[in-house]
Amino acid sequence: MSASNDQMRLILGIDPGSVVTGYGIIESNGIRSSHVASGTIRVAGEDFPRRLGDIFTRIGEVVERYRPVEMAIEQVFVNKNVQSALKLGQARGAAICACVVAGLPVAEYTPRMIKQAVVGHGNAGKEQVQQMVRHLLKLEHQLAADESDALAVALGHAHTRSTLQALQRSGGRRR
Amino acid sequence: MSASNDQMRLILGIDPGSVVTGYGIIESNGIRSSHVASGTIRVAGEDFPRRLGDIFTRIGEVVERYRPVEMAIEQVFVNKNVQSALKLGQARGAAICACVVAGLPVAEYTPRMIKQAVVGHGNAGKEQVQQMVRHLLKLEHQLAADESDALAVALGHAHTRSTLQALQRSGGRRR
Repeated sequence: MSASNDQMRLILGIDPGSVVTGYGIIESNGIRSSHVASGTIRVAGEDFPRRLGDIFTRIGEVVERYRPVEMAIEQVFVNKNVQSALKLGQARGAAICACVVAGLPVAEYTPRMIKQAVVGHGNAGKEQVQQMVRHLLKLEHQLAADESDALAVALGHAHTRSTLQALQRSGGRRR
Repeated sequence: MSASNDQMRLILGIDPGSVVTGYGIIESNGIRSSHVASGTIRVAGEDFPRRLGDIFTRIGEVVERYRPVEMAIEQVFVNKNVQSALKLGQARGAAICACVVAGLPVAEYTPRMIKQAVVGHGNAGKEQVQQMVRHLLKLEHQLAADESDALAVALGHAHTRSTLQALQRSGGRRR
């Protein structure tokens, strides 16, 4: 499979939230992936604009430190209610801005696309995705949920990208 | 009224949106206010992350150019649906981040507080607010709706701030 000759690239995955934002950096050529860094950014306090500024700044620091070349983030369609959607949207906007101003292309994936690309089917449960993230990245320690979700979207991006490239190379035929 | 001796300060008001974001800069001491600049920022295109980056960058340019010392923005509680709330939230997050990273304190006001502070009662209609904005800022030309809303929140902030200061000076008694 010629895709395995593809260059390794650093991919940043982000799972944003108005309190906890997960991030994960992997190095991947779409076939093999390894864990570079991951963690959670927790912002607190009454001053919500300040929290958004903190998300922006701290994601900017992650980008500055690891220099990923692409960012991937989950697309959100549903949410408990309008008020929490507004909050999540603002956190998401802060995280995306930090990447866009650093020149990173941002790719968005539905939860279904991420599950499909990571586990192999779009109906996989949360636990299955977490297990597969640890398996693919050969991680023995437990991950925080948001950290695992961030790594999952990075992996999903790496796999999807590689499939698209393989399809392009084969003139659109399925492997 | 001693508040009239307060220093004039530049206030930036923002009315964010995922397509059109209004901004307005006023100079005010809480009693007298004048128009410095206002306008709309339109972002378009399929690439939503890029649109968020554009909002961030262009609000950053407004801040850089006029150097306001405070930013005011309307608090949103309701929205048509979760999906549009997520979009608006992201645009709002981008605009707020641009101000927070520039060191501006951000104040949030409910629509009711803005109407109360600009027109004098919280149930004022949209048209009444627009007329009052033009009257207070001695503007003869028509304003775009988002531009007017941005100036309204800046004026609301200026008036509220001045009332708070007067209350503090008078030991909490109402004027």
